[in-house]
Amino acid sequence: MSGYDVAPGAAQAALEHGALDMACSSVAEALDGAHAAFIATPVGALSSVLSEVLDVAGPQCVVSDVGSTKRAVVAAATDPRFVGGHPLAGAETAGVGHARADLFDGATWYLTPTRATTGVLYERLHRLLRDLGARPAALDAETHDRLLASVSHLPHVLANVLVAQAARALDRDGERLPATGPSFRDATRVAGASTAIWGDIYASNAEALVATIDDAVRRLQTVRAALVHDDREAIEAWNDGAREDRRRLLEADLAGGPVQELRASVPNRPGVVADVALALGGAGVNILDMALYPAPDHSSGVIALWIAGDERARQAEALLAGLDLSVARV
Amino acid sequence: MSGYDVAPGAAQAALEHGALDMACSSVAEALDGAHAAFIATPVGALSSVLSEVLDVAGPQCVVSDVGSTKRAVVAAATDPRFVGGHPLAGAETAGVGHARADLFDGATWYLTPTRATTGVLYERLHRLLRDLGARPAALDAETHDRLLASVSHLPHVLANVLVAQAARALDRDGERLPATGPSFRDATRVAGASTAIWGDIYASNAEALVATIDDAVRRLQTVRAALVHDDREAIEAWNDGAREDRRRLLEADLAGGPVQELRASVPNRPGVVADVALALGGAGVNILDMALYPAPDHSSGVIALWIAGDERARQAEALLAGLDLSVARV
Repeated sequence: MSGYDVAPGAAQAALEHGALDMACSSVAEALDGAHAAFIATPVGALSSVLSEVLDVAGPQCVVSDVGSTKRAVVAAATDPRFVGGHPLAGAETAGVGHARADLFDGATWYLTPTRATTGVLYERLHRLLRDLGARPAALDAETHDRLLASVSHLPHVLANVLVAQAARALDRDGERLPATGPSFRDATRVAGASTAIWGDIYASNAEALVATIDDAVRRLQTVRAALVHDDREAIEAWNDGAREDRRRLLEADLAGGPVQELRASVPNRPGVVADVALALGGAGVNILDMALYPAPDHSSGVIALWIAGDERARQAEALLAGLDLSVARV
Repeated sequence: MSGYDVAPGAAQAALEHGALDMACSSVAEALDGAHAAFIATPVGALSSVLSEVLDVAGPQCVVSDVGSTKRAVVAAATDPRFVGGHPLAGAETAGVGHARADLFDGATWYLTPTRATTGVLYERLHRLLRDLGARPAALDAETHDRLLASVSHLPHVLANVLVAQAARALDRDGERLPATGPSFRDATRVAGASTAIWGDIYASNAEALVATIDDAVRRLQTVRAALVHDDREAIEAWNDGAREDRRRLLEADLAGGPVQELRASVPNRPGVVADVALALGGAGVNILDMALYPAPDHSSGVIALWIAGDERARQAEALLAGLDLSVARV
């Protein structure tokens, strides 16, 4: 794997940490002969770096990124080689000094293909991410950003609010109380995450984030009213509901079962792979692996999909049938 | 250690897990000859169980509890043997099956003595908690509850809000997306904590919790306004501020240094030990250990205090001098 970084010495450091096989001195050098390219920059710089990469990448090189918001970059790029990406992985630490070989093990890695995306390049990217240990899942960029506003951007905002409030509460006459427990530390682990990265994320997803903040405020006002009126029944129902929501969220993350293989005949038309990936990803069906087998004359082909769990496989069959594809269990 | 539980079989299970040396069939049996008693019930049941315990505990038995809110129980109990307590430790799990010998290692354990508290009993409790590995810290009950509204109760409320919102966002046409990353799981670890325990906590600290919710909503509205106006400078300053707040909170938790011993002469008057503990605890000075040495005629005595760090020790000296006590470094 070859890499290039605008920061002097960063590629060399990655080489020394074993995260790269070759440290390059330009984008063009890093992409020479590449079959896949990943762009990792703050979201605000993505569109311009993406143009630069697409200019020098070969015609069979799939190009992706790891930005936390997807609408802006996907809207800016209609190149068939580009597939937006976003791994749900990472830590408080930054920089290649904290690189870990197991960073993506089991991590959901969102992909935002469009109907312009070349099917074989999407398949290659999917398999590459599987080989890294991740679970690729397709979503349209709009849904991705709305979803991430809830499950990532709002948690970051609330962590910031919590530390700011606690810092004021713990300040007494200029003194500082050592007073936070393990649950506070967990809840605020992401507070004050890198401004260079998060400034862009907040700005690029402001609309969806404002909507989730408004929703959170409404929910807080509901709890507040129950507290003011000492409405125990409402408080208990709300707390029981949260426990149930958490259980369902964890179960969805852990869903699985014996792997099933499905095969569907697909016409050779632009966007069919994206349609399949988005239909399944949007319904929460995780494609463990996929393969494309074009017919000799390239007029059509077969797409093989591996799905965990019998119920999910049945659901996938129904979704594929809904796309007018003929599908069989192998 | 002897124990009693209203739930049939719970004390026996504790015995089998090595958490008790003796499983008793009544409060009186468990307290027979005891030097210290800990009450662990939901906050709503505390006052009545405390009366029962004080009725049968001996005159030299210090009685404490582990409830998460302290104003109500401290207001209800003026017995000199009672010291309110609250360890900042625990996990998602409950029940003696999850007991761990290292649960309290390094954990802040708040104590809320009043001027009615007997000094020697407070000292015994302090040392006992140190022996468990905890860091006892005195605070008045009012401050404790206001503080915990910020660092514990609000984080629980926000975790509930987050899972409720995410559950709605992840539901698409009845399907469920497996879409949460590690930061979301951290932020919502405490969502839907036991309703039996948290219903009481919320109800008993409603006033302080409502104030922190209002503060959190104000902070959310400020962020919202910056997002709506695309005010990058404000967003970045807010995020940088959160990082700084978090750094200071973690530093306060880790503050320490070489242990210093202070000795102060104290008059034999009610409440002097509570005064000392509250003065230092309220200023964030952690008393690692303490000992009382009464004069032979009991008219006065010496209190020895061990404090981590030279600066903190100097601060403790000044605070003790502020209580009109004569103090020396040993």
